[in-house]
Amino acid sequence: MFLRFTGLKRSSFTGNHDVTKTKEPTENTALDDAGRRNFLNTAAFAGLAGASLGLAGCQPDGEGGATSTGGSIDYGKYQVHPGQLDEYYAFSSGGHSGEVRIYVLPSGRLLKRIPVFNIDCMTGWGITNESKKILGTHPDGTLKYWTGDTHHVHPSYTDGTYDGRYLFVNDKIHGRIARVRLDTMECDKITELPNIQGFHGIFPDKCDPLDSAVNYTTRVFCGSEFHTPLPNDGRDLDDPTRYSCVFTCVDAETLEPRWQCQVDGNMDLVATSYDGKLVCSNQYNTEGGAVFADMMLRERDACVFLNVARIEAAVKAGKTFTIGDSKVPVVDGTQAANADPATALTCYVPVPKNPHGVNISPDGRYYACSGKLSPTATLIAHDRVLQWFEGRLQDPREAVVAEPEIGLGPLHSAFDNRGFCYTTLFLDSQIVKWNIEAAIKAYQGDSSAQVVVDRLDVHYQPGHGFTSMGETREADGKYFISDNKFAKDRFLPVGPLHPENSQLIDISGDKMKLVHDTPVWSEPHDSIVVRRDIIKTRQIYNMDDFPHAVKSPLDCRVERNGRKVTVYLTSQAPTFGLTEFKVKRGDEVTIILTNHDKVEDLTHGFAIPKHNINFIVNPQETKSVAFIADKPGVYWCYCTHFCHALHLEMRSRMLVEA
Amino acid sequence: MFLRFTGLKRSSFTGNHDVTKTKEPTENTALDDAGRRNFLNTAAFAGLAGASLGLAGCQPDGEGGATSTGGSIDYGKYQVHPGQLDEYYAFSSGGHSGEVRIYVLPSGRLLKRIPVFNIDCMTGWGITNESKKILGTHPDGTLKYWTGDTHHVHPSYTDGTYDGRYLFVNDKIHGRIARVRLDTMECDKITELPNIQGFHGIFPDKCDPLDSAVNYTTRVFCGSEFHTPLPNDGRDLDDPTRYSCVFTCVDAETLEPRWQCQVDGNMDLVATSYDGKLVCSNQYNTEGGAVFADMMLRERDACVFLNVARIEAAVKAGKTFTIGDSKVPVVDGTQAANADPATALTCYVPVPKNPHGVNISPDGRYYACSGKLSPTATLIAHDRVLQWFEGRLQDPREAVVAEPEIGLGPLHSAFDNRGFCYTTLFLDSQIVKWNIEAAIKAYQGDSSAQVVVDRLDVHYQPGHGFTSMGETREADGKYFISDNKFAKDRFLPVGPLHPENSQLIDISGDKMKLVHDTPVWSEPHDSIVVRRDIIKTRQIYNMDDFPHAVKSPLDCRVERNGRKVTVYLTSQAPTFGLTEFKVKRGDEVTIILTNHDKVEDLTHGFAIPKHNINFIVNPQETKSVAFIADKPGVYWCYCTHFCHALHLEMRSRMLVEA
Repeated sequence: MFLRFTGLKRSSFTGNHDVTKTKEPTENTALDDAGRRNFLNTAAFAGLAGASLGLAGCQPDGEGGATSTGGSIDYGKYQVHPGQLDEYYAFSSGGHSGEVRIYVLPSGRLLKRIPVFNIDCMTGWGITNESKKILGTHPDGTLKYWTGDTHHVHPSYTDGTYDGRYLFVNDKIHGRIARVRLDTMECDKITELPNIQGFHGIFPDKCDPLDSAVNYTTRVFCGSEFHTPLPNDGRDLDDPTRYSCVFTCVDAETLEPRWQCQVDGNMDLVATSYDGKLVCSNQYNTEGGAVFADMMLRERDACVFLNVARIEAAVKAGKTFTIGDSKVPVVDGTQAANADPATALTCYVPVPKNPHGVNISPDGRYYACSGKLSPTATLIAHDRVLQWFEGRLQDPREAVVAEPEIGLGPLHSAFDNRGFCYTTLFLDSQIVKWNIEAAIKAYQGDSSAQVVVDRLDVHYQPGHGFTSMGETREADGKYFISDNKFAKDRFLPVGPLHPENSQLIDISGDKMKLVHDTPVWSEPHDSIVVRRDIIKTRQIYNMDDFPHAVKSPLDCRVERNGRKVTVYLTSQAPTFGLTEFKVKRGDEVTIILTNHDKVEDLTHGFAIPKHNINFIVNPQETKSVAFIADKPGVYWCYCTHFCHALHLEMRSRMLVEA
Repeated sequence: MFLRFTGLKRSSFTGNHDVTKTKEPTENTALDDAGRRNFLNTAAFAGLAGASLGLAGCQPDGEGGATSTGGSIDYGKYQVHPGQLDEYYAFSSGGHSGEVRIYVLPSGRLLKRIPVFNIDCMTGWGITNESKKILGTHPDGTLKYWTGDTHHVHPSYTDGTYDGRYLFVNDKIHGRIARVRLDTMECDKITELPNIQGFHGIFPDKCDPLDSAVNYTTRVFCGSEFHTPLPNDGRDLDDPTRYSCVFTCVDAETLEPRWQCQVDGNMDLVATSYDGKLVCSNQYNTEGGAVFADMMLRERDACVFLNVARIEAAVKAGKTFTIGDSKVPVVDGTQAANADPATALTCYVPVPKNPHGVNISPDGRYYACSGKLSPTATLIAHDRVLQWFEGRLQDPREAVVAEPEIGLGPLHSAFDNRGFCYTTLFLDSQIVKWNIEAAIKAYQGDSSAQVVVDRLDVHYQPGHGFTSMGETREADGKYFISDNKFAKDRFLPVGPLHPENSQLIDISGDKMKLVHDTPVWSEPHDSIVVRRDIIKTRQIYNMDDFPHAVKSPLDCRVERNGRKVTVYLTSQAPTFGLTEFKVKRGDEVTIILTNHDKVEDLTHGFAIPKHNINFIVNPQETKSVAFIADKPGVYWCYCTHFCHALHLEMRSRMLVEA
């Protein structure tokens, strides 16, 4: 079945690990001959289960020019020495860790893990009353979920660039959207979306489609990947032809769904236009297959474009339906119901086989889809899609303006500010740099157009790739990150579970330069890179922002109401406001703790042995916990967050009477 | 109350954060005059609540010689470029994150988070049946705890150095000890210890006290910090004079307690002798105080030494008692019961005020305790303590051979292979390098002995510090890490919660050199630095090690036994062994998944939407989960760990019939 790969030597990763051998970037390895790589046919892929295609590190075969290594690299240029600060923030989804991460560039240093869909016993996320309310609980107060799979993080926009207000992130497992405040870098809202499964792509809008004065994010768009019966209540289990997907528009402030749009196909990434008129999602499995082989029958899948203004008009006009118990209005965006461009809510632009990403160029003109099972990238022109909605194109496929062959397993694309696109090649384990205008000329028949201008080996199997400020009008063309799914021999071995490898690449010159490898805990699914001046944080909370704050150490006390006991506590290094408090066995205890320290970085922790309680309070912050005091005895509540020379002595005693 | 600090200028950390100002290491800042710093008296500390002592970044006052900056530093020397491997592993406790971390030096790159006492939805720790069994559950199958506070990590020893078998780690909150296998880097056992609260220090033994042929770890010693009624069942709540602590000896293989020893005082760190004869713990609050001020009444607390052979003989002879429901034999090691050296099980060596650490020198001759509320370190000679047990010393205090004044807020000490000790100074925000033999001479009256030879500013407020291989006979004197509790202005701001700062210091020359700052998620309480050749990992599991492995894709099936349904599944990229499986609403479903991929680094994930399930299976590994299928509908079980170009298509369908 590999006949179509004739001439390519493949090395699988089954060799023994030898830490004494390090693999330095090789010089003069050969350029892949993408021209020899045709579409991979269905028969080949249908038989792939268990084969090594997905893992082969493609070794180029000696034809063509040199793969880039960037030549001699001045690594010192990228160092951030003690006392120096980095240039960029990177906000990274944590994949199935359920968290969001903040690291900085060029150092690659990880500054923060923001718990979102996971339980985090350091901060008390999933343990405090406040976080449990955000996460959602069963009627008995226990958490509904403590797993999540964050795939995409995108901040709010103003004027086509990041405005530092919010970060939006999704949970693929349970179909939830979350918001992180960028001043405090903490999650403040989570909403479980109805009627969806496998929520993968997410993107905030950048402008209102009708009112260009609203040039900031007011909506967040959410694509769902898995098609299910609608409603998914036990009906039609065995009839996948009746399964379907919906696309969701969420209000950026309330985080509640505004409307949904039923579509064909399984949605992957989401991208929004700079003028607010269109939102799109690349789609695989337009076949509607329920098993692996059926998901790749067609040579082309699609990128679906939604006409936001038309959909909102239809919602306003009540041309909607609802699904099951959900009250969210749904419009019909399926292909069959939208054949007439004059009234269509959606436009399905065909793109080759199981595409794995869609990204819009910083000038707002092009959407780049990658083929995944085709060695191509597809460029779709924004104005052409609008023309289709105006009835000025015969066929949505006419919106495609280029489709260069760039390499094997193209997944995700990112942009600089000089007209180049950088695409990750999963199978080739390379980044390919290609020129947008040249690709358009080549598509128009100009055989002299030089599309691919550089290739760089990465280590290994890149998934997402992204550039500094590359998803904004302010793309600056300085750095590209390749988030590689396999690390194998790049770091000291740590057992069967390897880290992933985030590689920093300098793209400011003609040739890409690999600057450093940073190991990352699975899975940094996707990230965005933000200039540091955009982020304005609060370093200390305002005590008045917490309605239950214990505003004076003199207010520390124990209040009883039947079996309900509330303990009001303060912290100020190195003591808590009460040296002891007494409750009775079986009491329902609530502890409210306000940190009175005002010094930046002076966080306290509060743990209760044998009661499964730990959380932190940052300067001037208030948090609370609730539990049943079910074990008589003495329990030393202690500060868990090192605060002071007398940190060990910072304790209070909970006395539980039998 | 700061009269005793006359001449010291203090800057508090209350200034506004300005990211545009970076603080480079300053040259020629002045050496602290430790000689002017006397013991801090009780009255001063009793009034400290809310004062800034614990946070002041002490600015030296212009007297004395230059503080080290290491001069001009060749940072490039410490770089680990793409494709290169690091020299050392560092195993780090994660504090109240409940996890253990593996990073590498000199790069500081974080390779792995090992979930231990926390829930980790990436790996499925706390979610799979196997991990829940290790963590411990209530009778209804729900987890008993999901918070933890890991303080100390120490690997098993052979011949006085690390043997790469196990890593032991404690949970302070719930009094648990855990073991991590160093071949797979995963936790394999957890034991909750009886009769203790605030389990802080932990150390494996290095030799049997009687049989020197048993020159490897067979015991792990555990110090508990908080004194409580024994048993802690509701009695004596209001009478702290009846509270007490026990020290625990755990079997390194079974991880079950062998014996306990009741002691006076609150235990902090634990250290073991190289000959196996002694184990010790530094103690604060020998006053037995229940409130802050009472914990620092005495000018001296103690380092308690346990005579292991005598205790084990006493246990063998049945000279023990038990506490409450616990069956673990307990001996009486209180000071009052052990006044006669000839029969004493314990020896209490007085050391200044609230000491905060004890570490043994690589030659096995000295234990260094730091004073915390005294500007001193105390050196206790191993042979002198043995002499006390032989009745050859009048007073345990005669075991002290040096007590140099080294700076304010000394916490923890580490050693090189050239006779120097490096102590963190929390209040001075410095590392002080001092000479052991010079300190002994000075204590003997040699006023010309130069004890302190170098100081280095760190940023800021260091807690633990440790050297490469410094807790073994193979201490190599290359690196020191200062784990600083405050980071303030060293990194880009990320809101009210700051990272901590792990600073790498080159100690190979006369002057210490600050090499880099690495931000760390709270709290890397303590770490150890291990040469890479010592660690031998497995990169792929052996399928036969899992009794429930689904050994062939042909074995995939659904088995029903009443309402209990077992689903046998395999994974092999990019498919699961069943494309669908059907259960009924209300079924108790167990899924057993074996990963048949044999390729290194080819891990799969398995998530079930709306059922709170996610876990990973590494190559050739088997895991299982159990849940109630309580919602009719179609649920796409999908691979969450990026595995293959067709990763998105790697799914199975769970059909839940109404």
